[in-house]
Amino acid sequence: MSSFVLDPRLAADSHPVSALPLCELRLIDDARFPWLILVPRIPGVSEIIDLDEDRRSALFAEIVAVSGALRSATGCDKLNVAAIGNIVAQLHVHAVARFRGDAAWPRPVWGFGEKVAYDKAGRDRLVEKILTALPA
Amino acid sequence: MSSFVLDPRLAADSHPVSALPLCELRLIDDARFPWLILVPRIPGVSEIIDLDEDRRSALFAEIVAVSGALRSATGCDKLNVAAIGNIVAQLHVHAVARFRGDAAWPRPVWGFGEKVAYDKAGRDRLVEKILTALPA
Repeated sequence: MSSFVLDPRLAADSHPVSALPLCELRLIDDARFPWLILVPRIPGVSEIIDLDEDRRSALFAEIVAVSGALRSATGCDKLNVAAIGNIVAQLHVHAVARFRGDAAWPRPVWGFGEKVAYDKAGRDRLVEKILTALPA
Repeated sequence: MSSFVLDPRLAADSHPVSALPLCELRLIDDARFPWLILVPRIPGVSEIIDLDEDRRSALFAEIVAVSGALRSATGCDKLNVAAIGNIVAQLHVHAVARFRGDAAWPRPVWGFGEKVAYDKAGRDRLVEKILTALPA
């Protein structure tokens, strides 16, 4: 049985925020959009429907908690929540805070333009806000 | 208390497939991608996290059932499942069957190029396959 290793492209594109019971919670390094990903620490799974039922329930609960924290931390106009994975097969779920008038609005963020890296202070501020908003 | 009315843009872009316990299941009229939407029959809700817990659980169960049926009916390489709603605010969840080499691969389908309407026979065939694959 293999053990979980975060996909290197996900690792390179994001910063750690928290280790939830099931998922690694990470912030995509793109200051245009407050954009989190949840990565279940389960090796070899690409689809939500291929998780066993307990893990699927845990994932849904973490998606709900993270979505709520993200909205509360950012005051966004809309949440975009998606499991796509056409490029990186390792199961990961996006939760993106969207604002009317953000760089891509109303289009989705995936594949949109060029990423803008955070400066460290801005990233730390957002991560702190999200951690504060997450249920304990 | 208002009653549920399907958003007119969702209605115009899709065909009815089935009335699930919580959601209207509809096929987006775009023959490039087998593409379903689930629309909970709850008025005035835009975000999954604003559903009460019972309805959220019902929605997750229907997403899982529909995703499984869609994969089984199409033999797709990847499922794309997403709640976006930047254009149509009425809560709706996309479940899209993706193939390596489809028109948009590996990009997401939302906002990609021009839709290609089904001919009626092709649409009926796909709907029939999906209905057969859905749990009773």
